[in-house]
Amino acid sequence: MNFTSDNAAPAHPSVMAALARANDGYAASYGADAIMERVTARLRDIFEAPEAAVHLVATGTAANAIALACLCPPWATVYCHRFSHIEEDECGAPEFYSGGAKLTLVDGESARIDPDALQAALDHAERLRVQNVLRGALSLTNVTELGAVYSPEDVARLAAIAKGYGIPVHMDGARFANALIATGATPAEMTWKAGVDALSFGGTKNGLLGVEGVILFNPEKSWEFELRRKRGGHLFSKHRYLSAQMDAYLADDLWLTLARTANVRAADLARGLTAAGARLLHPADANMIFAELPRAAHRALRDAGAKYYFHPADHSLDGPAEEPLAARLVCSWCTTEGEVGDFLTALKTSRAGAG
Amino acid sequence: MNFTSDNAAPAHPSVMAALARANDGYAASYGADAIMERVTARLRDIFEAPEAAVHLVATGTAANAIALACLCPPWATVYCHRFSHIEEDECGAPEFYSGGAKLTLVDGESARIDPDALQAALDHAERLRVQNVLRGALSLTNVTELGAVYSPEDVARLAAIAKGYGIPVHMDGARFANALIATGATPAEMTWKAGVDALSFGGTKNGLLGVEGVILFNPEKSWEFELRRKRGGHLFSKHRYLSAQMDAYLADDLWLTLARTANVRAADLARGLTAAGARLLHPADANMIFAELPRAAHRALRDAGAKYYFHPADHSLDGPAEEPLAARLVCSWCTTEGEVGDFLTALKTSRAGAG
Amino acid sequence: MNFTSDNAAPAHPSVMAALARANDGYAASYGADAIMERVTARLRDIFEAPEAAVHLVATGTAANAIALACLCPPWATVYCHRFSHIEEDECGAPEFYSGGAKLTLVDGESARIDPDALQAALDHAERLRVQNVLRGALSLTNVTELGAVYSPEDVARLAAIAKGYGIPVHMDGARFANALIATGATPAEMTWKAGVDALSFGGTKNGLLGVEGVILFNPEKSWEFELRRKRGGHLFSKHRYLSAQMDAYLADDLWLTLARTANVRAADLARGLTAAGARLLHPADANMIFAELPRAAHRALRDAGAKYYFHPADHSLDGPAEEPLAARLVCSWCTTEGEVGDFLTALKTSRAGAG
Amino acid sequence: MNFTSDNAAPAHPSVMAALARANDGYAASYGADAIMERVTARLRDIFEAPEAAVHLVATGTAANAIALACLCPPWATVYCHRFSHIEEDECGAPEFYSGGAKLTLVDGESARIDPDALQAALDHAERLRVQNVLRGALSLTNVTELGAVYSPEDVARLAAIAKGYGIPVHMDGARFANALIATGATPAEMTWKAGVDALSFGGTKNGLLGVEGVILFNPEKSWEFELRRKRGGHLFSKHRYLSAQMDAYLADDLWLTLARTANVRAADLARGLTAAGARLLHPADANMIFAELPRAAHRALRDAGAKYYFHPADHSLDGPAEEPLAARLVCSWCTTEGEVGDFLTALKTSRAGAG
Repeated sequence: MNFTSDNAAPAHPSVMAALARANDGYAASYGADAIMERVTARLRDIFEAPEAAVHLVATGTAANAIALACLCPPWATVYCHRFSHIEEDECGAPEFYSGGAKLTLVDGESARIDPDALQAALDHAERLRVQNVLRGALSLTNVTELGAVYSPEDVARLAAIAKGYGIPVHMDGARFANALIATGATPAEMTWKAGVDALSFGGTKNGLLGVEGVILFNPEKSWEFELRRKRGGHLFSKHRYLSAQMDAYLADDLWLTLARTANVRAADLARGLTAAGARLLHPADANMIFAELPRAAHRALRDAGAKYYFHPADHSLDGPAEEPLAARLVCSWCTTEGEVGDFLTALKTSRAGAG
Repeated sequence: MNFTSDNAAPAHPSVMAALARANDGYAASYGADAIMERVTARLRDIFEAPEAAVHLVATGTAANAIALACLCPPWATVYCHRFSHIEEDECGAPEFYSGGAKLTLVDGESARIDPDALQAALDHAERLRVQNVLRGALSLTNVTELGAVYSPEDVARLAAIAKGYGIPVHMDGARFANALIATGATPAEMTWKAGVDALSFGGTKNGLLGVEGVILFNPEKSWEFELRRKRGGHLFSKHRYLSAQMDAYLADDLWLTLARTANVRAADLARGLTAAGARLLHPADANMIFAELPRAAHRALRDAGAKYYFHPADHSLDGPAEEPLAARLVCSWCTTEGEVGDFLTALKTSRAGAG
Repeated sequence: MNFTSDNAAPAHPSVMAALARANDGYAASYGADAIMERVTARLRDIFEAPEAAVHLVATGTAANAIALACLCPPWATVYCHRFSHIEEDECGAPEFYSGGAKLTLVDGESARIDPDALQAALDHAERLRVQNVLRGALSLTNVTELGAVYSPEDVARLAAIAKGYGIPVHMDGARFANALIATGATPAEMTWKAGVDALSFGGTKNGLLGVEGVILFNPEKSWEFELRRKRGGHLFSKHRYLSAQMDAYLADDLWLTLARTANVRAADLARGLTAAGARLLHPADANMIFAELPRAAHRALRDAGAKYYFHPADHSLDGPAEEPLAARLVCSWCTTEGEVGDFLTALKTSRAGAG
Repeated sequence: MNFTSDNAAPAHPSVMAALARANDGYAASYGADAIMERVTARLRDIFEAPEAAVHLVATGTAANAIALACLCPPWATVYCHRFSHIEEDECGAPEFYSGGAKLTLVDGESARIDPDALQAALDHAERLRVQNVLRGALSLTNVTELGAVYSPEDVARLAAIAKGYGIPVHMDGARFANALIATGATPAEMTWKAGVDALSFGGTKNGLLGVEGVILFNPEKSWEFELRRKRGGHLFSKHRYLSAQMDAYLADDLWLTLARTANVRAADLARGLTAAGARLLHPADANMIFAELPRAAHRALRDAGAKYYFHPADHSLDGPAEEPLAARLVCSWCTTEGEVGDFLTALKTSRAGAG
């Protein structure tokens, strides 16, 4: 019963097998391996983007920060949600990689950027004085950090606002596969067809050991990306081990299969929580749930061995039994029906005890 | 017959097995995994440094650049060899991570810093004017980029010069194990006992998929290192896969065993080259050889399937047959006696044909 | 009738005279001039801070950004008001000088940071995870960008909150003299006695050509400041011309005399505006007024030759005559009673015409 | 008898008068002043470059560093002389402003870059691997830091080499006027006609209080320059005081008149030194002389009140009387015939005493 994070999950066996296969004798280094060629071709195919540039890095923070640095000059600002990963969880990596660009925080329900709030932020003040930083880029996170998703129409609406000011659009897709499953959109619909210029295509949270793709739909920044990646220490000498993970991820739509499992488990869990009287704080669109439960229920769940974080994380199990506290519950490709069942059973028991 | 680079070699089977073992169910993320605890304890033990801080990253460039950024402020300079990896092969990563520090290039035979040249560089001009950048750190590479090694005494001599100016010492140990095998020194003798403050402890070139340790013998910079690592996008969420590689690397002295093989193969190769009349341009102390051969020999070797780089890399097979061209030949843990034998046979044949 | 900015005002004749006096033969360069010694002594005396480090730069942006870079590491955030100069008017200079630190925007009336909002911002999330940026520094602007002032008690209260989290306090005192006049506080009461660690001591807006002091009450960052200043290109070779301006500014309390004039003129203007029925949008504590007037009044004032900015600046004179639009009116040391009188007369006439 | 630096000289009376004239009532700030329009027009005229972008900053370090940042990306290197100001005297400002670009040091007599050495540096290694930093820009200093000058032909030859690799050319013209006087070249011949893309057009060392122009012959980087200038804290609010200095500098060729005086004085001094048996270490082409004199002569000169620096600066007056020590002697626009005469008299006396 581990719902702490999709980062706590292991890698999928097919991925491990691919690593083992890749570990066969000598291979060209620094991205010139044969597997990478196949990865590039597949991703271009999947995204219906035959010109797109494709690069791999090992962490989501690297993917986001290097991509944004290619889109946003140092004297500009990235519009992002107040609760986005790039603002809250990357220790300033976007600022570091961009050479000191700003992040302008925009509000919106469930960590989705509100179009009016975006418009207002972009409108704010005269932005062609040299005193201001310039408008730089828009960054959307899909699935959001609070578990909601943007539909392709949502993305298109926000991207259109950004394009109205001439700035490019980045998507942090650490949970991109989960967003596709949730919406039924195609990769192309969710990205370049809706106005996305660069995508962090997540793999790590969805069954890989540690690989994220960066897809630049406009490939003219590809060489700059490569320079920034090397300069950031993110070009792997034994690159084949990144390629192999991504290759296995794409084969037979494994990436979508894994995300579907995670989303299904989360839907089951959300249904059970609601049935048990818990309040869901955000739409449980994909594989993350934010649910409010009385402290007594948390105690019972912890006693039953359930692992998860409070939201915010510093809540305490000590205090009034009935006080509602929010839990963040994340399902992954390896969450089992048993885990969901055990969780809901423990919850039901606690409610019974309370009754 | 692949002598292009130790980066072209695969990972050792024990490392793959450790990865598979680590892939068992949920694990705490971001370095809080249980394996990392063991790694830290082992490295402290191996280095006789019970207080040392130990962190893992996935690339050598990251290890060097983040370590140097902890040692050298933006308004200072890192003294390094003109042919060091941090100068020649990292696309400016040390400058990027340090916030714009300089690299001051020092000369010396076979990419070993000459003590007098270091002294002169440190002496140059008055360094307490605000107009100058300050002296920042000394960085030594062992094994050097030209295949030579520093003995602990060599390191101590250079470190003492640096310490005389109050600056710390970093060692780029991408091939640290090979340097130990070559010199018979203990890890402690080669590092903190000789004055080294921070070590990039290489694993990738010596049998891992992609892991380097950074060992800070003075642990007070440990928290800063962690912040810089995260900010650089180098903190792995599924950190256990880094830990597992390093864990297998250290178990039963695998790291030393692998390096010994590489060094032995290189020694055999060097002996054969010399016997065949080739001139060695640098001491073949560890696992790299720089050997001058007539172009005709290169042609024969290439025809026989030998893979390696010229040095510099842009030499051409077209041209006078007798013109001597330098080859860079790198042995790794997986270089076989057969590969060495085939190479020398091909070489001998070409000489016979020439005669 | 120029109320556009105190930056539009000329330098005071005494300052020009001091420049002329300083222009006498040779002088030591780079801050070693004799006048600077006197400036340092005087500022220490004025601030009752015999150990303080004193440095001069030529712009307020340089003063703020270099001071903040000394207080806040790259992986931390500066808490400041949403409408502060460092956020709105410096094109990202604090991010640039700090190496990519964040600015966390805090709300509060009239550009004064609200203590509860500051507390909430500092409390936000757990700040000892490596994923977050750290808390870095608090920056207060006095006089605020909307013309209000902090009393020493206000400063002390906010500084105490910051100190509760172990972070230092910077004050952007571009209009520091006006704040002192407005509150009757001594320089020491407004700064170090209230918890301020570093002050940008403004001169340019108050009668100089272009000089700001930076006073570090804790001098241990003095050498770092000097390095950052030189590295930023802000160390003047002919430094005596900065020293001379500051010297004249401090002599016979000229700085306070000039600020008093500016504040008195603004008070007269505010009184007249209120009498004429204008609504003041912010407390006109010092030398800036934000007043709402119908568009017709603005037209009349512009016709009469009054110069000032709308707030925000992009309002238009075209539109409904009765629509209220805000003006920003800034008085300086050289604003005359005549200018204020002419303005109020023009305003009165327009109202009469409207009636 | 002050030969320490042209930075030790005062400002020319015409410049002071222009400042006083500019100090007349209100003026538009941030570069929108009327005087600046005239300055731009005049510089375009002087340089026969009607499209050139012209910006002012207050220090030479700012001029160089911001200009170079516009020419050279962070992952590239600036080729400059080992003894250039940007390497030796700016505390890493070019690295800071460029976001961590390298400086590649090139040798050559008297701080003039040797064409063959430049060619070799540019050729070094393969520069299209992502591991290398890219070739970024060439920076020439005219007059060099050792007092020699480049002719327009010299500049053209070096610029052609740089252009052969597709990189732009910057000229640090802190003593640009002195270089023109020394060579008889026109401003256009020395710059864009010879291949220079950006010029730091010095004023401070030649009679101003502190103003340097930056002339971008290709104006497409003009807006980026403005953003970088503001972000660096180098945009003056009361910009008219920079404009006024430059305006006076250009009026009636004052800048050339002042440089001519400095060069003439230096030529007289050099002639006298040679006559007295001193060895000149570098061609005294402009207003700087490096002359070797026995320590006894230095003692006599110091006793007579002569002020200048040794080269290097840390030589001591204590030691063998006959040991030759180098002096750096700088003449400025305000060096008088009397100063030169007194110096030579004191020198002669010392030699007589020695004889």
